[in-house]
Amino acid sequence: MKSTFVLSFFLLLSFLSHAQTTPFQWQQVATGVWKATVGKPEAISPLGVADVKPRVEALQKLGTPTFPTELKESKSERTDGKVYLRFPLERSEQLYGLGLNFKSVQQRGTIKTLHVDHYGGKDDGRTHAPVPFYVSDRGYGVLINSARYVTVYAGSAVRKDSKNPPEEMNRNSQKNWNSQPYSDAVEVLVPATGTEVYVFAGKNAMEVVQRYNLYCGGGTLPPKWGLGFVHRMPTLFTDAQVMQEVNEFEAKGYPLSVVGLEPGWQSYSYPNSFVWDSTRYPQPKRLLDQLLAKNIRANLWINPYVSSHSPIYKNILPYTASHTVWVGVVPDFNLKPARDQFKKLFTERHLNIGVSGYKVDETDGYDRWLWPDVAKFPSGFSAEQVRQTYGLQFQKMSTDWFREKNTRTYGLTRASNAGASNLPYVIYNDYYNHKDFITALCNSSFIGVLWTPEARSSKTAEEWLRRMQAVCLSPMAMLNAWADGTKPWTFPEVADQVKDVMQLRMQLLPYLYTTFAQYHYEGTPPIRAMNLVEGFADAGTLIAGKLDATDNPYAQAVRKDVKDQFMVGDYLLVAPMFAEEPIRKVILPKGKWYDFYTGKFVGDGETITVDQSIKLDKIPLFVKDGGIIPMTSTTLHSPTQDEKLPLTVRYYGTLPGTFRLYDDDGETFNYEKGTFGWTLLEVNNRAGKQSPTQGIAWRYGPVRWEYMTP
Amino acid sequence: MKSTFVLSFFLLLSFLSHAQTTPFQWQQVATGVWKATVGKPEAISPLGVADVKPRVEALQKLGTPTFPTELKESKSERTDGKVYLRFPLERSEQLYGLGLNFKSVQQRGTIKTLHVDHYGGKDDGRTHAPVPFYVSDRGYGVLINSARYVTVYAGSAVRKDSKNPPEEMNRNSQKNWNSQPYSDAVEVLVPATGTEVYVFAGKNAMEVVQRYNLYCGGGTLPPKWGLGFVHRMPTLFTDAQVMQEVNEFEAKGYPLSVVGLEPGWQSYSYPNSFVWDSTRYPQPKRLLDQLLAKNIRANLWINPYVSSHSPIYKNILPYTASHTVWVGVVPDFNLKPARDQFKKLFTERHLNIGVSGYKVDETDGYDRWLWPDVAKFPSGFSAEQVRQTYGLQFQKMSTDWFREKNTRTYGLTRASNAGASNLPYVIYNDYYNHKDFITALCNSSFIGVLWTPEARSSKTAEEWLRRMQAVCLSPMAMLNAWADGTKPWTFPEVADQVKDVMQLRMQLLPYLYTTFAQYHYEGTPPIRAMNLVEGFADAGTLIAGKLDATDNPYAQAVRKDVKDQFMVGDYLLVAPMFAEEPIRKVILPKGKWYDFYTGKFVGDGETITVDQSIKLDKIPLFVKDGGIIPMTSTTLHSPTQDEKLPLTVRYYGTLPGTFRLYDDDGETFNYEKGTFGWTLLEVNNRAGKQSPTQGIAWRYGPVRWEYMTP
Repeated sequence: MKSTFVLSFFLLLSFLSHAQTTPFQWQQVATGVWKATVGKPEAISPLGVADVKPRVEALQKLGTPTFPTELKESKSERTDGKVYLRFPLERSEQLYGLGLNFKSVQQRGTIKTLHVDHYGGKDDGRTHAPVPFYVSDRGYGVLINSARYVTVYAGSAVRKDSKNPPEEMNRNSQKNWNSQPYSDAVEVLVPATGTEVYVFAGKNAMEVVQRYNLYCGGGTLPPKWGLGFVHRMPTLFTDAQVMQEVNEFEAKGYPLSVVGLEPGWQSYSYPNSFVWDSTRYPQPKRLLDQLLAKNIRANLWINPYVSSHSPIYKNILPYTASHTVWVGVVPDFNLKPARDQFKKLFTERHLNIGVSGYKVDETDGYDRWLWPDVAKFPSGFSAEQVRQTYGLQFQKMSTDWFREKNTRTYGLTRASNAGASNLPYVIYNDYYNHKDFITALCNSSFIGVLWTPEARSSKTAEEWLRRMQAVCLSPMAMLNAWADGTKPWTFPEVADQVKDVMQLRMQLLPYLYTTFAQYHYEGTPPIRAMNLVEGFADAGTLIAGKLDATDNPYAQAVRKDVKDQFMVGDYLLVAPMFAEEPIRKVILPKGKWYDFYTGKFVGDGETITVDQSIKLDKIPLFVKDGGIIPMTSTTLHSPTQDEKLPLTVRYYGTLPGTFRLYDDDGETFNYEKGTFGWTLLEVNNRAGKQSPTQGIAWRYGPVRWEYMTP
Repeated sequence: MKSTFVLSFFLLLSFLSHAQTTPFQWQQVATGVWKATVGKPEAISPLGVADVKPRVEALQKLGTPTFPTELKESKSERTDGKVYLRFPLERSEQLYGLGLNFKSVQQRGTIKTLHVDHYGGKDDGRTHAPVPFYVSDRGYGVLINSARYVTVYAGSAVRKDSKNPPEEMNRNSQKNWNSQPYSDAVEVLVPATGTEVYVFAGKNAMEVVQRYNLYCGGGTLPPKWGLGFVHRMPTLFTDAQVMQEVNEFEAKGYPLSVVGLEPGWQSYSYPNSFVWDSTRYPQPKRLLDQLLAKNIRANLWINPYVSSHSPIYKNILPYTASHTVWVGVVPDFNLKPARDQFKKLFTERHLNIGVSGYKVDETDGYDRWLWPDVAKFPSGFSAEQVRQTYGLQFQKMSTDWFREKNTRTYGLTRASNAGASNLPYVIYNDYYNHKDFITALCNSSFIGVLWTPEARSSKTAEEWLRRMQAVCLSPMAMLNAWADGTKPWTFPEVADQVKDVMQLRMQLLPYLYTTFAQYHYEGTPPIRAMNLVEGFADAGTLIAGKLDATDNPYAQAVRKDVKDQFMVGDYLLVAPMFAEEPIRKVILPKGKWYDFYTGKFVGDGETITVDQSIKLDKIPLFVKDGGIIPMTSTTLHSPTQDEKLPLTVRYYGTLPGTFRLYDDDGETFNYEKGTFGWTLLEVNNRAGKQSPTQGIAWRYGPVRWEYMTP
């Protein structure tokens, strides 16, 4: 121990003399966006891998805010081979974001080590999209652009030198003793010698999110077919079985726009050959053509781990990691030769015969089968850095293949990170808690990712309907029947109601497509947590904890926040019902709200109760006063480019209403070259007016105005 | 992206030329113990903080094994500012240890980031004693002596260059596809630029554990009173209430050796003043004297966080961390001035008036109130390093105060780490799952720590009895009633049976004390997982996983291992019963076994079923053929040094039996200077023989031999 004493004194001296923190040197990198570097940032980062291209003009259009005063006293420090960051917090400030969380929306007071992984049931940072970005309700956001496992103390730690320290309490005598005293800072540990930090300004949380998304290239704009209904087939289905199931959907009148083929389409999988199985799929192009003739796309399941039976195995081997996943080799996509092998094989064997996209599995975890953090990658990047960016990398790489063919894709990913806003991938997982799935929908809106609360199977008809209803109001309306073979009509008691909501999904396409266009052009996420919505004020209720020797020995308080309702676009409030809960509360933002189905007034900025009056039939949907919902007719498949569907414009309430309807060809990237158009729809005193479309020809048939509110 | 390409190629070259791993340079540091260093080990480590003093002679007596051949091809590497380690594994090898786990005994195939924390319900490395030590059934152990959050892949990762690679499978066609293929190495990530690694040899797992414990100074030898019954009082009890409760125990005939005073003994707590509350404890010495007159000791609850109301606050302030815990300052015990402040206050105000020890709370976590990893400590050690060693540091420091007074202590801690074998502290927590508490008992035996499955309260009388029975066969028989005020007789239906097992605890003192002496002198842990027991062979049954789309999408197998029974010492097998489970299986190691209570033969190396025949009465206990259990009479309090209790020597079965009974004064450290003795007890053909005691005078009254087996 003696040497420790001596050392300690030496270290104490060094501590006292060098314990200096440094203010950030912020540099504006776009309107309302600032960047600072601490130490020497690493060569790999999420924004770098996503290769973000800021939408400079759109950022300018949002206004020119000044640097957030709240962050002026932020500090950084390099110590212990790591970077420590500190950002001040005001007493009542609320924080959102910090990854795709499933349990809570408000993140102040939480601690997370952000780590790409399958979600394990706790909002501890291990999740599919551990985006190191938080948004404050004060109107700013902070992004730590690091590909490391960043730990964020989101207002949990209390410093000795705090300027507004919490009061010391005596638990023996003071009933209001608090196990977690007030903290006045977000503190961050970046386990790297350097990092970039970005600040996004905004007049409110929504504008911050818009800036973040616009800086990341604007939100993704899916192909129109991507917003139709997606059905994933049982794993070992053959081409004939696929067509039989497709025909059954059609015969029964259930919409279908995409079929997903699961591992069995491949000759080898887990690890993967990436080539068609000749027994189950002897003529893949024929199948894809048959599907396309019905305007149905095919999506292929893969994971990126390469079987020795794959044609690219030998060529890719030198560009793979030290460790395997399911004995398959792990390509290092940071190296061009690895990317090129995939591009060639996938383009030739899939894209060129009509495959529309991929479901990229197992890029997240679990640790038990993913490469360990001691794995080495030939690019020289650490296993940690590769883990944090692998899913993102695959999204970016595969999107580029489709872009080269001037065809949009819309797929599924299990892993994402910062910078993903512009990537056409929706996150999914196996966790399957319906309520938590809705919370994840809310949380996806803060961090530039899309999430689907997919349906797989259910214990009861009621649960099945509730899951199918919720997924039909999400970024991807998907039945993932790979293991269970569940069909929309599996529960006869609710087969009609399921059909109703699937048809509603198709009818809502004009509204949904415009909502995604807003994501792309303006940065507003298609799904919106209530905390992003104007006129919604909820700081979460802190419920005092009750002492329990074993269940709650520190009498911790619980924060109850609003995480079971959300907005789709500007006007539509969705309040999913859950199995075995025949009533629910809905918190309406400021203003008057109307029932989507009947147009009836339901409440004015108040909390209402939805009860048995809706029975099993509908998912509760509400429209804001003056809200306009453009809808089309019930179609079974996504419309073709030439199909002129009729347009029904629903109007709710009494306030003057406007809606800018977006359109383009729905399939290509020509919109990036200006081939798109907006049509202004207006209602004043129950009189609808359609202004001429700018930019492109009108693609719909005749317009019918429906004044819903009696 | 361009710069990434260029960089990638550069990194690829550097990877190909430098991807060298280095064999370890092992140096023998004691008989059967080797050490290697990788990089420059850090100035703080668990063994350094515990200040371990190897029992050199005892290690020599164990034999002189050679370096384990299994580890000869171990490798190390320094990369990414970290250390990577790799140790080979044979195909059927089993691994134990890696911290105080609550769910599983066998650790092969698991992944843990070892991190001092409250146990959170998963064996993921976050636990009270995340000892970076594993034991192989092949007869060796590996210790990573690092104070960092070490990640261990205990045979989970599969390398591309594996010499015995698992077979690649096709999940589409092969039913026996395995989500976790066989791995031939333990791989370790130490997030530091250097570390020490120790290897312990042994002819089996037990001998490895013995060497580990002996290297760490030999197991702790508690004072005799520490093995009596411990009752912790409700938080705000006054001195009068304490005496009333003590008198009630006595009047009702329930044994009591230690009372624990909870936060309310202090004037301020959470954070702490460390001084007596003058209203509840106006004359603390008088109370302690009254207790001592009954041979009852007092133990004080504290946590180390200093209130501004504490007399040491001002002096210790310069030696505290940047962050607070419950607004109390956090002493940096790596600095002598901080230790000195505690020593002076605690010695003067507690030890000098008769306090016997401490319950040191909240040195583990949770993260929500402990200092964050961005905290800075004036010693210059990182928050991570301090977190990993804080509980250990307090154990060591406080033990030394008592040692200076030549008085043993026996206390409670919430945090520990490697090197703790010799420290007189028992770990406890709030987790309170009875079955998992027993698994923790098993696991404590691999890693040189003690654990108590303490009882607090129960929902039913049955649960209460089951918990009280199990805790009475553990290192500390404790009722922790701080919040609930539960008393042993709270459930009248089982009050007698609870009294029985508490009295049994007292009767077993001679056996228990000798068992701890074996821990101290020979390194054999007092509680022993079955996998440490000779004649017990169980590799755990791997139960094939059933595919379930959401609950088990990868059809993971589950390992069922034996974690609900254990040995106390050489002869006594304990098989606790659990509430609502009126029958249980018990796996008997090789040889014949007998019922402890009746002496009847129960089985021969087989699995037996214990059923309703024991009803609620007893905890199932079994004795090995030839087993000798020395017991004393039923006492209410621990015996004084001069009290001559009678000795009853129970003998079971038919084989010749021996028992070396240990004794010393039971209170001081004089045994370290040779004042102790062993007495050989032998039975041959139902004839008991007592050899003369070596070293000290015989402390018991007359010996009675009981031949239990009819």
